[in-house]
Amino acid sequence: MRLSDKAPRAPHSAAQECHPKHVVQPHKAALLKRLNRIAGQVRGISSMIEQDRYCVDILTQISAIHSALDAVSMQLLRDHTQGCVQAAIKSGNGKPAIDELLQVVQKFTR
Amino acid sequence: MRLSDKAPRAPHSAAQECHPKHVVQPHKAALLKRLNRIAGQVRGISSMIEQDRYCVDILTQISAIHSALDAVSMQLLRDHTQGCVQAAIKSGNGKPAIDELLQVVQKFTR
Amino acid sequence: MRLSDKAPRAPHSAAQECHPKHVVQPHKAALLKRLNRIAGQVRGISSMIEQDRYCVDILTQISAIHSALDAVSMQLLRDHTQGCVQAAIKSGNGKPAIDELLQVVQKFTR
Amino acid sequence: MRLSDKAPRAPHSAAQECHPKHVVQPHKAALLKRLNRIAGQVRGISSMIEQDRYCVDILTQISAIHSALDAVSMQLLRDHTQGCVQAAIKSGNGKPAIDELLQVVQKFTR
Repeated sequence: MRLSDKAPRAPHSAAQECHPKHVVQPHKAALLKRLNRIAGQVRGISSMIEQDRYCVDILTQISAIHSALDAVSMQLLRDHTQGCVQAAIKSGNGKPAIDELLQVVQKFTR
Repeated sequence: MRLSDKAPRAPHSAAQECHPKHVVQPHKAALLKRLNRIAGQVRGISSMIEQDRYCVDILTQISAIHSALDAVSMQLLRDHTQGCVQAAIKSGNGKPAIDELLQVVQKFTR
Repeated sequence: MRLSDKAPRAPHSAAQECHPKHVVQPHKAALLKRLNRIAGQVRGISSMIEQDRYCVDILTQISAIHSALDAVSMQLLRDHTQGCVQAAIKSGNGKPAIDELLQVVQKFTR
Repeated sequence: MRLSDKAPRAPHSAAQECHPKHVVQPHKAALLKRLNRIAGQVRGISSMIEQDRYCVDILTQISAIHSALDAVSMQLLRDHTQGCVQAAIKSGNGKPAIDELLQVVQKFTR
C-alpha cells in the first residue's frame, strides 16, 4: 500500500486536489454513500443464494451492481480528468497523465 | 420478494434442482465465499476513498470487482443452463426457459 | 477453414438445422441484411476519417456499430440455443453443447 | 452531416489539429488500414452465414470484430485527448471538452 503524502499543500484551481498521489475526492461523501449501498447489494446477493432464490433473479441483481459500480467509476473518472489530468496538462506535463487515463479507461471498455 | 416454494419435490438428474423458482445452487458454498470476498473488495474501495488514495488506483480496484462479479455470474449462468434450462428442454418446455436465458445474457453484454 | 458437411440429413424439430457443424441459420436473410448495413457503417467510419470529421462524432458512430453487431450476436445466440443446444440436450448430449455455449457467451461479456 | 471548416488555420503544438470540428487524425493512414481490415471481417461474417458455417465459429469472429473496433476507438480516444482536449484545457476552456470526452467514454463502457 502506497503511503499517501499528507504534507500541507497549496490549493489549486481544480476542484480535485492532486498532490503526488494523494487525492481528496471532490464528491467524497456521495461516493462513500454509493459504495455503502453497493456493499449492501453484494450482501443481498449472498442472501438470495442462501435462500435458494431463482438464478435469473440473482443474475439480474448482479447486473444492477455492475451499473452501480459504473456510476462510481464515471464519477471518479470525471473528477480525475477535471482535477489531476487537467492540472498536469496545465503544468505542461500532460503526456504521462493522458497515457495513464487512457490505460484505465481501457479497463472499463469491452 | 417472491415466496419460494419449499414443498418436497422429486430429485431430477441435473445437479441444480429447479422447482418453480426455488433453486439450490450446486456451487453454493463457493459462490458465498466469492461474494464474501467481493463485499470485502467493495469495503476496500470505501477505505481507499476515505484515505484519499489515488483515483487511478481506485479505478483499477473497481475494475477487479467487475471481473470478480463476472466470475460469479458465469458460474450462475453455467449452473442455470445445465440445471433449469436443460430440465425445461427435457420436459418439452424449452422455449420460455431459453428466452429467459437469452434475456439475462443480454444484460451482461455491452 | 472447416469444410462443411453438405450430406443430406433428416430434418428435426428445431428451426435451426444442425448437422455436425453445418448450420442453416433460420434468420439467414435478416442477418445478411443487417451485416450488409454494418459493412456500410464501417465504410462510413473510413469516410469520416478521410473527411477529417470530428473524433467524438466518429466514436459515436463506432459505438453504434458495436450495438448493431450485438443485435446480430444475440440473434445468432438465440437461434443457436433453440437449435443446436436444445437438440443436443434432447439427444442426451447436453454437457459439451452447454459448455461451448457458455464459453462463447463469456466472449461477449465484459 | 456537419460541414467541416476548411479555412486555413495556424498549427498548434498538439499532433492532432482541432479547428472547430475539423480534425486531421494524426494516425489517419493506420486507422484507415485497420478499418479496411474490419470491413473485410464483416464481409467474412456474411460469407460464413451464406456458407452455413457453425454458429459458434461465427460468434467467435464477431467477438474479434468488437476487439478490432475497440483498438480503433482507443487510438481515436487517445489522439482526441492528447489533441483536442489538451488544447482546450491549455486555452482555458477545458470543462466542455472534458464533459464531452467523458460522455463518449461512457458509450464504450458496459
